[in-house]
Amino acid sequence: MHILVTGAAGMIGRKLVESFARQPQIAAQPITQLTLADVVPPPTLPSFIGQSRIVTGDIADVKIIHDLVAPRPDVIFHLAAVVSGEAERDFEKGYHVNLAGTQALFEAIRLNGMRHKWVPRVVYASSNAVFGGDFPDVIPDDFHLTPQTSYGVQKAIGELLLQDYSRKGFFDGIGIRLPTISVRPGRPNAAASGFFSGIIREPLVGQEAILPVSDETRHWMTSPRSAIGFLRRAAALDTSLLAGDPNLSMPALSITVGEQIAALKRVAGEKAVRLIRRVPDAEIEKIVLGWARGFDPKRAIALGFTSETSYDEVIRAHIEDELGGEIRL
Amino acid sequence: MHILVTGAAGMIGRKLVESFARQPQIAAQPITQLTLADVVPPPTLPSFIGQSRIVTGDIADVKIIHDLVAPRPDVIFHLAAVVSGEAERDFEKGYHVNLAGTQALFEAIRLNGMRHKWVPRVVYASSNAVFGGDFPDVIPDDFHLTPQTSYGVQKAIGELLLQDYSRKGFFDGIGIRLPTISVRPGRPNAAASGFFSGIIREPLVGQEAILPVSDETRHWMTSPRSAIGFLRRAAALDTSLLAGDPNLSMPALSITVGEQIAALKRVAGEKAVRLIRRVPDAEIEKIVLGWARGFDPKRAIALGFTSETSYDEVIRAHIEDELGGEIRL
Repeated sequence: MHILVTGAAGMIGRKLVESFARQPQIAAQPITQLTLADVVPPPTLPSFIGQSRIVTGDIADVKIIHDLVAPRPDVIFHLAAVVSGEAERDFEKGYHVNLAGTQALFEAIRLNGMRHKWVPRVVYASSNAVFGGDFPDVIPDDFHLTPQTSYGVQKAIGELLLQDYSRKGFFDGIGIRLPTISVRPGRPNAAASGFFSGIIREPLVGQEAILPVSDETRHWMTSPRSAIGFLRRAAALDTSLLAGDPNLSMPALSITVGEQIAALKRVAGEKAVRLIRRVPDAEIEKIVLGWARGFDPKRAIALGFTSETSYDEVIRAHIEDELGGEIRL
Repeated sequence: MHILVTGAAGMIGRKLVESFARQPQIAAQPITQLTLADVVPPPTLPSFIGQSRIVTGDIADVKIIHDLVAPRPDVIFHLAAVVSGEAERDFEKGYHVNLAGTQALFEAIRLNGMRHKWVPRVVYASSNAVFGGDFPDVIPDDFHLTPQTSYGVQKAIGELLLQDYSRKGFFDGIGIRLPTISVRPGRPNAAASGFFSGIIREPLVGQEAILPVSDETRHWMTSPRSAIGFLRRAAALDTSLLAGDPNLSMPALSITVGEQIAALKRVAGEKAVRLIRRVPDAEIEKIVLGWARGFDPKRAIALGFTSETSYDEVIRAHIEDELGGEIRL
C-alpha cells in the first residue's frame, strides 16, 4: 500500500508518519511505500522499512501535484495548509495554499483517475474553524457552516469540493474536522490558541506559562494521539457509511481552562500549577470567544471515532509521548 | 451610477436590464452607464438613455474580467452561470464558469479595489440548489448547506467567497438564493424543472403541456418579476443589516402542482387546464423529490424582500409581462 501525505513536515504530518513507522498497515494492508510532500523537507523515517520519497514544493504548483499523484497512491492524506492566523494576515497566501492547492490536488487525482480507473481514498484535514458566528454550546452534526475567518472559509470550501468529487466518484473522500490540539508538542508559538497547550506543556518541564483568558473559558480539544487516530481510522473506514456527507465533526473534550488546570494539578501537582501566570489579554479573549465550545459528534461516534474521556488522560499521553514518561519539574 | 451585469444575455439578465430601461435608478441614484457581459452578445437597449457597452467573452478569462472591472462600476450583478443540468453533465465547464469565473471576478475587484480604494456593491445570484439531501418541509435561515449537485456546490462555494471578501472589505456583497422561477418565459426547455413553468405558459397560448410528476408535488417558486425585485432591492440595501452573513434565502410560494393548476383554472378557465397532459416520468419525479419544498426566509422578509402572496398573481403577472395582457387560448 502506497501512502501520500501532503503537509508531511507539519506537527500532525510528522506524527502521522511516525505512526506509520510504528504501525505500518491500514485496514490490515501493509504500508510498503510513502511519499511525503511539504514546502520544507519532511523528516526522514529511519525506522520505516518500505520505500519512501520526499518531495519539496508548492502544493498549488500543477506540475508538482501531477508528479505527486502520478504513482497513484492508494491513500492520500491532504494535510497541507496555511494555518488560521497566517491565512488571516496573508489573504493571497491562504487562498493559494488552502484553496488553489486543494483544487490542484483534487483535479490532478480526477484527471489521472479517469485515465487509469484509479479511485484513491482521500483523507482531508478540515477544522472546527468551519463553524463561526452564533452557535450553541453544543454544535450538532447538521449545524450550518458560517466561518468567520479566511481559513475557515477555505476549509469549508475544501469540504464542499471533497463532497462533490466523492459524489462524482473521482475519489473516495472523507473530511475530518480536527479539534484544537492540546497538548501540542514543541515550542511556544504566537497562535491565539497557543495557551491551551502552553499552560500544560511548559509547567511539565518547569517553565512558566502565560494564561491570557479567564478560567471559565470553554473549548473543544483533543490530544495529538487522538488526532492521528482519527486520520488513520478515516483511511480505513467503509465510506459507504458516510451516506453522501463525507465531512465529520470529531469527538473531543469540551472543557474549561480551569478544568485543564485541575487535571494538571492531579497529574503533576501544585508545583506545576504555580508556573501558570495569569496575564489577561482582551484581544485573545475576544478571538477565543468566537470559537466553538463543544460538539455532539453523533455521526463520528457511531462510525467508531474515539477520543480521550478525561483531560488527565490527555496530559498523561503527552508525558508518555513527548517527555519519555517523565515530568521534568 | 455605473452598473455591470455578468450573464446579461440570460433570462434573468435580460429582464434585469429591461427593468433598468424602465426604472433607471438604484437607491435614488440615476443609472447613467451599463456594462453588459455574457458569452453571447446581450440584447441592446433601445430605450436606455445612458451609455451602454457590451462585452462578449469567457467570465473566467482574467484579461476580460480585468477589462470589465477597470471602469470601476458602482454595482456589479454577477449572474453569469452554467445551469444545473449542464454543470452536472459537464463537470469541467461547470467549475470553469461557476467557480473559476466567480473567483476571477472577485479577485479582479479585490486587486483593482486595493489600488483605487474602490468598494463596489456585488449582488451574487445564488440558488436554492445550495440545499440538498435531507431537509424539512420548511427550511430555516440557519439550515446547513449540503448541496447534492455540482451546481449547488459551486453556488455554495460562491456564497462562502462572497462572505469572506465582504468581511475583508474588498467589496460590499450580498447573495440572493433565487427560488425556481415560474412562470419562466420563452420556449419549453429540457430542464427537469421546466414543467413548473410549462404547465402554465403553454396552455395560456393554446398549446399542450406535459406534466411528468404528481399533482401533490410541492415546490418553492416565484415570478421573474419578484426575482428582478430581489436583485434590485439587494443592490439598494443597507448591507450593515446583514450582520456578517450576506447570503439570504428569498421569499416565494410553497405550492403544489395541483395548486398551480387550480390557479390556472381560476385565471384562464377549464379550457386551459385541459391542455395539461399527465405523462408520469419516474426519473423527473425522483430529481424533483430532491428539491427544497419550502423556506421560512425570516431574514429576507425583515429586510423588506417581497414576493407574490398567491399563484394567481404570478399567472396574472406573466400575462401582463409576456402576453401583452391577453390570454391567447
